[in-house]
Order: sequence, then C-alpha cells, then structure tokens
Amino acid sequence: MFRGRLVPCHEVPARLDHVLAELRRRGAASLLAADAAPDAAFAALLERIHAPRYLRFLERAWDEWIALDPANAQLDALPSVWPVRGFRADVEPDNFAARLGLYSFDAGTPLTAGSWRAARTGAWAAAQAARAVAQGRQRCAFALTRPPGHHAGADFFGGYCFLNNAALAAQALREAGAARVAVLDVDYHHGNGTQSIFYERGDVLTVSIHGDPRTEYPFYLGHADERGAGAGEGANLNLPLPRGTDFDAWRAALDAAIEAVRRFGAQALVVPLGVDTFEGDPISGFRLQSADYLRVGARLASLALPTVFTFEGGYAVAEVGVNAVNVLDGFENG
Amino acid sequence: MFRGRLVPCHEVPARLDHVLAELRRRGAASLLAADAAPDAAFAALLERIHAPRYLRFLERAWDEWIALDPANAQLDALPSVWPVRGFRADVEPDNFAARLGLYSFDAGTPLTAGSWRAARTGAWAAAQAARAVAQGRQRCAFALTRPPGHHAGADFFGGYCFLNNAALAAQALREAGAARVAVLDVDYHHGNGTQSIFYERGDVLTVSIHGDPRTEYPFYLGHADERGAGAGEGANLNLPLPRGTDFDAWRAALDAAIEAVRRFGAQALVVPLGVDTFEGDPISGFRLQSADYLRVGARLASLALPTVFTFEGGYAVAEVGVNAVNVLDGFENG
Repeated sequence: MFRGRLVPCHEVPARLDHVLAELRRRGAASLLAADAAPDAAFAALLERIHAPRYLRFLERAWDEWIALDPANAQLDALPSVWPVRGFRADVEPDNFAARLGLYSFDAGTPLTAGSWRAARTGAWAAAQAARAVAQGRQRCAFALTRPPGHHAGADFFGGYCFLNNAALAAQALREAGAARVAVLDVDYHHGNGTQSIFYERGDVLTVSIHGDPRTEYPFYLGHADERGAGAGEGANLNLPLPRGTDFDAWRAALDAAIEAVRRFGAQALVVPLGVDTFEGDPISGFRLQSADYLRVGARLASLALPTVFTFEGGYAVAEVGVNAVNVLDGFENG
Repeated sequence: MFRGRLVPCHEVPARLDHVLAELRRRGAASLLAADAAPDAAFAALLERIHAPRYLRFLERAWDEWIALDPANAQLDALPSVWPVRGFRADVEPDNFAARLGLYSFDAGTPLTAGSWRAARTGAWAAAQAARAVAQGRQRCAFALTRPPGHHAGADFFGGYCFLNNAALAAQALREAGAARVAVLDVDYHHGNGTQSIFYERGDVLTVSIHGDPRTEYPFYLGHADERGAGAGEGANLNLPLPRGTDFDAWRAALDAAIEAVRRFGAQALVVPLGVDTFEGDPISGFRLQSADYLRVGARLASLALPTVFTFEGGYAVAEVGVNAVNVLDGFENG
C-alpha cells in the first residue's frame, strides 16, 4: 500500500543481488554468510533493542495470519487499524489485526512468510559485523541484508524494516567496550526507528541526513528541533534537506554530521547505508551521482573509527550495487 | 481495508433507507431534513469538539486527493502511513498521504467524494436535534445520519466516523444550559472517539457498553480501568462484555450504566444508538433480538431526561430499521 494504492514493493531481492555481484566484481576481500544459528548473546542483544512482546509477535505473525484463514497464505498481512493519540499501547489485544496495527506505522511493509527469518538473520549478520569490528579483526564490516532496518523502532515496524540492524550493531559495539558510539544515517529517509530507540540515551549519538519530513517519508520524525531528551539531550542531530538537493549541499551536511561525531568523541561508528540519495532513485528526491559515493566513503573513513555499515534503502535497482559498493570502496581506498 | 483485505464497506446507504422506511411505516410524528445551510453557531460548535486543522483537512481532502492524480477519482483515499508511539503529531506534514495518516486510525474508513458533505450535514443534524430538545420543543430527537460519529475523535477519523455527532450534541446541550450531560453509548463497539474527547472533562459523563476491546474493534480503548483523568476523573465508565453476551447480561450492564447517569446528576442525555448488538449482525458478537430493543428504549426513558439519539452502527441491513426504531418506540411508548 503506497500512497493509497496496492502496488508492487520497491524493496526487492534483486537489490541485494546487484550489491553482491558488484562486490564480487571488485574482488571484495571476504564475503561471509551469517552463521546459521544465532547464539544466546544475540537473543539477549535483540531484547535490549526491541520489546520482547514485539519480538514474539513478529516470530509468530505469519503462522497466526494463515491460521485465521488458509487463503491468507496467498496474501501479505497489511495493517488495517492502529492506535493514535490517546489510544493505549500498554494492553496487547488478542485480535491479530489489532496486534498487527499496534506494532506497525505503515501499510507499505507487508509481513510475508519469510519476513521473520529474513529479518532475524539480517539482524544476526549486523551483530556479527559489529563483533568482527569490535574485536579488531577488521577496520570495517558491511552487513548486507534484506530487509533493511533503520525505520524499525523498539516495538514497531515500517518502511520495509522489522528489526533495527544499525541499532543492534551500535548496541553490540557498546557492549564490546566502545564507551560512545555514533550512528550516522545517510539514507534518503530519516532513520526514525534508530532515533527513537536511542532518543533518551547519552551513550549513542544518532545523526541523520535526509529528505525534509514535511514532504518526505517517514513524515512524523526527522525535524531539526529533535535534539534528544533526558540523558540523550543533545545526542540526536537531524539534518533535513529539501527535495532536489545536489551533492554539494548534501556534502556540507555530511561534513556537519562528521564534525558532530568527532565532537561526541565516538569510539565506533555505525553507518546505515542507503543509496536512495541517488539521482535516479524512483521514490526519492536528492541528486547524488554514482561517483559521489566514492567521496562519501572517503569522508566517512576520515573519522578513522571502527565502522559497521548496514544496508538500508536504494531503489534504483540496476545502480544500487555500484552506488553502495562505491561507498565501501571510497572508505577502504580513499 | 478490513482485516488485511480490500472488501466492500459494511456501512452502506441502504442502512439509513431501512430506518427511514420503518419510521414512516410506524407514522413517526415529524421527520425533518437538516436545513441546507449550517449557521455560524454550528461552525463554532464544530471547533469546540474538533481541532480546526483537522476540520480544514477533512473539508479539502477529496479535492487534494484527486489533484494529486485525476485517476484517484476512481479510488477511495486510504491511509498508508501513520504516527505511532514517539512520533510527532504537532507538525502537520505537507504531504497528503502523511496528513491522511496523521488524522486516521484505520484503513476501513475510506474518504470519498461526498464524505465531508455527508459528515458535516450529519453533524449539523445532530446539533439541530440537540437544540430542539434543549429548547423543550420535544422530549427526544433522533439524528438519523450517515456516516456515524462515535469513533471520531477531536482530530482523527476511523470506524466509518469523521465528525462525532454524539459529542457535538452533548456539547450543544451543555451550551444550551444543561450543567451536566451524559453520553450513554449502546453501540456494539466502544465509543472511543467520544471517550477521548471528554476524557478530561467533568461536565460530560461518558458511558459505553461494548464488546471487549481485547478482541473487538476499536481494540485500543474501552477497558474497564479507563475512568477519566484530571477534571474528568471518574466521569468515564466502560462496561466491556465478551462476545456471545445475550440480552440478560447486556441488560444488567445497561442498568449499571443508567444508574451511573442518575448518580452523575445528568440534566440531559445523548445516546449513540448502534444496533450492531443484534444477534444477526455480520461483524459483531452480541445476541440481542429485535424485540429486546423495545425494552432498551423503555429503560432509557426511565431516566426521564431530554434525550438526543444519534445513529451509529448496525450492519444487519434488513433488520437495522426495525431494531433502531424499536428503541425509539420503546422510549416513546414504554
């Protein structure tokens, strides 16, 4: 459901295939599949970022959906009712549709047969990437996953995201010893899930460069006046930019973001890497060119921090591989 | 969009035709069409119950929707993204889909070409009904409208409701001199909009007898522990009942509701009248029979208060006329 219509999903498997092919083409040093069986530490990590009742819901949702009606196996599960201002979220309803709505913020993120397995395996990949970097085995790691993660909150999914891979990586880096971790989100869309997860924490800085939420998804967060709260006061920085922004203006925002990460004294970095800032992206509005992504990577590398990249948006499918790998290439090779 | 599927709307024009036909069949004393042009007092009343920015949105929504794409004229406007816990509602986005989601709580309430006109005219009918009763011109009045209203909040629509006719009638009765007004909602579904509008007010008691929100729409409000807040503490009473409840158990809840209205010292009464408590209702779960509605009316009349009925749910279309008019008949003739 996109702008009032049922349409094919923009987040398709070929996106990941293109990135993988491009990595292989450039002879990427090591491509590792996520181990089949996540360990107990990962289960505990998941529950530090996501609400246990939300995880239980996601795990069982598809089975519940088809148990309601076997014909549902041919459909995606889409929310049809949700709690607004003044409604309660503290009582989890028994009704499946009500729980589906309780835990979602859009109808563009269908829950399908493989959603939980894919999201959990992707989150596990992000956790392993964080471990590899934290242990000094490599300077950076890229968790190449579908679905993406940065829109998922502690207890809600949306924007094709179910589990917040970037938040899980940041938390894993924290627990592996980094006293302060920064998340620098370069996806076209505001990282609303990551912001909300860390909004009241002072140990994780969240920075996002994105399309102005007045006109761009996810609309209800991402304004410049959101600076964090409580212990997290000052540890959130939003850099919204208007549709049509080109690389010069975007790079100025990146420089401000990098400076904020430096001032924060981060010891590790997580980059939710979306390449829907690309001029050819079908649902976004910035004007970056493929070659620009090399410079994005080089600038991120200037922070000289252990870095985990997670794979987020980018819907110009044919170019998504070149653009994403350019960031990594620029990061590695300046 | 109902439980994950696009289906025909249960709230159809024939519902109202059946009620009107039944009223005529029994020789109802006076049937009045709402005057064509609402007056300035009504516009002010609307803004005391609903947020001005929400009213502006509803008024223009259809034109905006078709301005986006002329082909939209063939579609209903359905929300596809909405703000959840921690998202902001204080900034109204420019994007139409984002505003549609900001002001809604379900995808089962399509905005169509005539929605605003129908909702506004219905609300005007409710206001006129309240005036007629407040001026003593009649003991009771029935605002026979589509769409219904009791699910609509100060700034959200849902459950086929856009403007809260019952809340507008209650407010009109207050302003016409009744110091304390009670709303006694007998629809199968919790009157979440009315509750939320008056939740912090002590001058309007809201009572609702309805299907348990753990399993029944609207799910996220309607629990027994919601008693009002601030000045409204103690001025909200929810009487949730399980699916399968028959008239004996339902009548016991009605007696408790009537006793609460009496204790509150209400000087006027508004009854959001849904007859989806009927055993044959296709989307509800109580077991009232058509004859029971005569007794419901008689019990409501025992309060001996100036009373405004608003027309809410009831989806057993062929029986909705008999059932609704039985309540009025029982009220008038005991």
